[in-house]
Amino acid sequence: MMLKQIGEFGFIDKISKGCLIRPDNIIRAIGDDAAAFTVASDQVSLITTDLLVERIHFIRKSISGFDLGHKSLAVNLSDIAAMGGQAREAFVSIGIPLTCPLDYLKAVYDGMKHLAEKFNVNILGGDTTRSEVDLIINVVVYGTAAKNRLLCRDAAEPGDIIFSTGYLGDSKAGLYLILNNLPVDSTEMQALYRAHVLPQPHLREGRFLADQSGIRAAIDVSDGLSSDLGHITEQSAVGATIYATQIPISDSLQTFCAAYGFDPLEYALGGGEDYILLCTAAPQHADEIEQNFQRQFKRPLFRIGKTTADHRLEVVYANGTSRAISPRGWDHFKKN
Amino acid sequence: MMLKQIGEFGFIDKISKGCLIRPDNIIRAIGDDAAAFTVASDQVSLITTDLLVERIHFIRKSISGFDLGHKSLAVNLSDIAAMGGQAREAFVSIGIPLTCPLDYLKAVYDGMKHLAEKFNVNILGGDTTRSEVDLIINVVVYGTAAKNRLLCRDAAEPGDIIFSTGYLGDSKAGLYLILNNLPVDSTEMQALYRAHVLPQPHLREGRFLADQSGIRAAIDVSDGLSSDLGHITEQSAVGATIYATQIPISDSLQTFCAAYGFDPLEYALGGGEDYILLCTAAPQHADEIEQNFQRQFKRPLFRIGKTTADHRLEVVYANGTSRAISPRGWDHFKKN
Repeated sequence: MMLKQIGEFGFIDKISKGCLIRPDNIIRAIGDDAAAFTVASDQVSLITTDLLVERIHFIRKSISGFDLGHKSLAVNLSDIAAMGGQAREAFVSIGIPLTCPLDYLKAVYDGMKHLAEKFNVNILGGDTTRSEVDLIINVVVYGTAAKNRLLCRDAAEPGDIIFSTGYLGDSKAGLYLILNNLPVDSTEMQALYRAHVLPQPHLREGRFLADQSGIRAAIDVSDGLSSDLGHITEQSAVGATIYATQIPISDSLQTFCAAYGFDPLEYALGGGEDYILLCTAAPQHADEIEQNFQRQFKRPLFRIGKTTADHRLEVVYANGTSRAISPRGWDHFKKN
Repeated sequence: MMLKQIGEFGFIDKISKGCLIRPDNIIRAIGDDAAAFTVASDQVSLITTDLLVERIHFIRKSISGFDLGHKSLAVNLSDIAAMGGQAREAFVSIGIPLTCPLDYLKAVYDGMKHLAEKFNVNILGGDTTRSEVDLIINVVVYGTAAKNRLLCRDAAEPGDIIFSTGYLGDSKAGLYLILNNLPVDSTEMQALYRAHVLPQPHLREGRFLADQSGIRAAIDVSDGLSSDLGHITEQSAVGATIYATQIPISDSLQTFCAAYGFDPLEYALGGGEDYILLCTAAPQHADEIEQNFQRQFKRPLFRIGKTTADHRLEVVYANGTSRAISPRGWDHFKKN
């Protein structure tokens, strides 16, 4: 069935079901001129937004509607996670070409709703319109954080320990598998594929970190470790040394790189869309934070390096040699 | 100059200037994972979003960057106005084709900033990315309203007086001039052109109305009087009678219709994008509201009809005859 058979309002009726899963504090959901809700007075409001455009961010034939919906929301939830926040309300603008089947669109919303439910997020509004050729999805997420617990990019100090909440480079490997139509038949390749198409935002990890003593700066890895760490060092006016042997590389990525002849370290440094968190912590609190994280999540918080007083970003190898890494990764308008 | 010469981050640096005009309550503006701000505890939070896609909502060759920027923000401010709210923070996602000149994009932001400044709104964040062919602009506006002063669509009661805060149909006439390359050389035609390309959101009018005793429902006219009034009647489970002789038609629209052979009433009923407000009020308060409005804004609040106990929407003509009007106007996916 195509959209023109049920029309804009028929479509909105169809996708509105299951959008309001946490009605507390909600005064108006989908259906009025704006959504309306109340916020507890001790909370800071957070807003983030991401635009996904067909042929730039995704190829419709290569991603299921469900996965696309998941990803559109996940990238925004990850930004709230990086502030140490609780995601609360999502708003979805969608520009739909007439060639896009209704089933695909329904799956997009199913993917969003499934992830929204996992993190107790309402889909509270949006805009539904046409697009001439490309499917367009813009998601906005509103979240809250405790007033004194906000994680920002500019709060690192020289000598901080740099942590990563998860493996790096898996998503880039997953993308390589997809773009090259390679088999996704082993557990390892499936893990990489899922890391790319169904990234899990580290909202719980972000809130946990925000509650720890000694945590300073944080960011989520969307453009790649070197690029995103570069945002922290630039905005905090510090440098950073990353230890090659300490960068968390999954067994799946090792297997992938062995099979296809790549360097796992390059994938970990330059791969984007991991949606794990990088954070820095005062050195005297680092051990405690690491232990608390392990106890809470039953997996390690990876200690990957430290911030420095100069403004350089470098990676140090096992043999003691080092190399500068470029702080700026993906740029949508320059050749990357 | 084209965007690829300065890159994504060069562009963000360029357009970020002049975005933060009201720093009070702002903890994080452009540059972190999410914007962060505080909200007074007696306020309700409002969020609205609108997506504008090239070739669907605008033709790039026919609209200046400034006017496009103005309009993208204005349509969202109008939604906050319709809730009786104060607009506070705007977030701009933009998908840019490589063919779009930097000057045009800069003008888009100039148009937004000019309007934002007029209403004391910060541009607090967004997303900048590429698009394959069409320019895409999604704007989100965050606003606040006093807890007991929210104007909603479902609050009309039978017997309410229906008001309009401005003239109807001018924007549609302006669009006709543009689409048919007709001369915009007289004061009247310029007024119609401006009504279409530079609509002025009725934020002050919305807040004023929200403060009046007896005001019940409200909506802004984006799809057209009959369509938007239809949202109020449908959601409030009432009907409405509109008096043809009382519908506010500007002298400019009269001149236009006389020149091109159109019926002004049809333009007023079916024309969209007026971005004035419709509201309903308890009849015993109607006179006082009307007088207060005139005193505040030095122009009339137009009394155009009343709500009824049945579910019909009708227009009554000077000669006493009446005709049902369809409650649903513009549908993006059906033939309109």
